[in-house]
Amino acid sequence: MSVEDPVRSAKRRAGEEAAARVRDGHVVGLGTGSTAAEMIRALGRRVRDEDLTIAGIPTSFSAAMLARAAGIPLRSLEDVEGIDLAIDGADEVDPHRNLIKGGGAAHTREKVIAEAAVTFLVVVDESKLVSRLGEKTPVPVEVIPMALPFVLRRLRQLGAEPLLRMAERKDGPVVTDEGNLIVDARFGPIEDPASLERAIDRIPGVLESGLFVGMAETVLVGVPGQDEVRQIS
Amino acid sequence: MSVEDPVRSAKRRAGEEAAARVRDGHVVGLGTGSTAAEMIRALGRRVRDEDLTIAGIPTSFSAAMLARAAGIPLRSLEDVEGIDLAIDGADEVDPHRNLIKGGGAAHTREKVIAEAAVTFLVVVDESKLVSRLGEKTPVPVEVIPMALPFVLRRLRQLGAEPLLRMAERKDGPVVTDEGNLIVDARFGPIEDPASLERAIDRIPGVLESGLFVGMAETVLVGVPGQDEVRQIS
Repeated sequence: MSVEDPVRSAKRRAGEEAAARVRDGHVVGLGTGSTAAEMIRALGRRVRDEDLTIAGIPTSFSAAMLARAAGIPLRSLEDVEGIDLAIDGADEVDPHRNLIKGGGAAHTREKVIAEAAVTFLVVVDESKLVSRLGEKTPVPVEVIPMALPFVLRRLRQLGAEPLLRMAERKDGPVVTDEGNLIVDARFGPIEDPASLERAIDRIPGVLESGLFVGMAETVLVGVPGQDEVRQIS
Repeated sequence: MSVEDPVRSAKRRAGEEAAARVRDGHVVGLGTGSTAAEMIRALGRRVRDEDLTIAGIPTSFSAAMLARAAGIPLRSLEDVEGIDLAIDGADEVDPHRNLIKGGGAAHTREKVIAEAAVTFLVVVDESKLVSRLGEKTPVPVEVIPMALPFVLRRLRQLGAEPLLRMAERKDGPVVTDEGNLIVDARFGPIEDPASLERAIDRIPGVLESGLFVGMAETVLVGVPGQDEVRQIS
C-alpha cells in the first residue's frame, strides 16, 4: 500500500466530511480546486454506493469535468429553483470564516453559486488558515479587458500592488471562463475585509473580487496527521 | 433649406455646447447615443476647423465608428495617462444630476470612462429630465450569462420587474460589446438611487448597473425651440 502525502490526505478527509453532509435530493454547488476535487470524488462514490439522487452545479469547466468523471448528474443554474448546499475550497480563511478565493480564476462563478445557496460550506487543509486575510495571498480581482489600466490605478489608490495574472501554456494573460482578466492585488494583511470588498466591487469594470466576507457558514479543516476534521462555525 | 426636427436640433445644440468645452490637448471620453453622436460630429468639425490636437476614447464600437468618420484621432484607455473630460448622454437625469444610462447597452464602458475622467459632462434633450429616476426607464444591469437566473431573482427581491433585453436583427438576447447580457430592471420611481446602485452592484455576477449617482458635474440640456442650452450644475 502506498503512503498518501499527509497534506493530500488532509484535503481528502475534509472533502469526504463535506460530501457526507449532502442529503438525498440536494442540489449541490461543486467548487474548484484540489480540496473541492476531493469532495467531488467522495460525493461521486456516495451517488454510486448509496444511490443518491442529487444534482451538481459546477463552478467551473474543471469542476464540471471532474463531476462527470465521478458520475454526478449536472444541472445548470438556470434549471434549478435554488441550491441547497454549495461546497468549495479557499486560498485563505480567517478566524471569522472570511475567505480569499480565486487562485483558480473561478471566483466570480464561485461567488454566484455560494450566494445562491442556502448553506455555503468551505473545505480546506490547515495551511489555508491565517490570522488575517492577505497575509500570504493577493486578492484576485476579475476585470473586463478594456478597464484594466483604470482598475490597476484604482487598486493602487486602495493600497495594493496589483499584477495582471499571466498565463502558462498560453502567451499573454490568463483569460477566465467568462472571457475576462485577473488582477492579483497584493494588499498585505487586511484590516477590514468587508469594507475592502465593497471598495473593490465599486470600481467600474470590476466583476468580482476574491474576498468572500460573511458568506461561509462552516469551514471544515483537514489537518495533516490527524484523522479528525476540525470544524469552524 | 430643410427644417430640422426640433428635438434633433435640441440634441445638436447640447452636443455643440459640450464640444465647445473641449480644449486643445484634451483627452476626451466619447459617449454613446444620439446626443453624444451630435457632440462627436461637432467635435470633429472643431478638430478640422481649429486644428485641435485631441485624443478621443470611445465608450463603444458605435462611438468609435462615428469618431473615425468625424476625423477625431482615437486612443485606447491603455495608452493615455488619464481622461480630461468625458462627455456622454443619458436616458434619465434627476435634479441632483444622477442618471440612468444603458439604453445602448454600453453603460459599463461608459461608467469606466466617466470614472476615469477628471470631469464628466452630460448632454441630453429636455425629454430626459425627470423628478425621480426610474419614472419612465428601467435600470439596465449588465450580467454575466451564467448568473442570469440568480440575478433575476435578486433583482425581484430588490423590488424590480426584471426583463432580459432581447435583440432585434439577431435571435435571442442582446449581447454587449463585453459578451454579457442586459437585464432591464423596472423599479418605478426610485427613492434612494445611491443605495440602490450599491445594492445592485453587490449582487455577484453583476458587472455594472446603469445608475450613475454623484458622477456628473454638469448636465447640458437642449430644449426644443430654444437656442440657449440650459445648464444644471
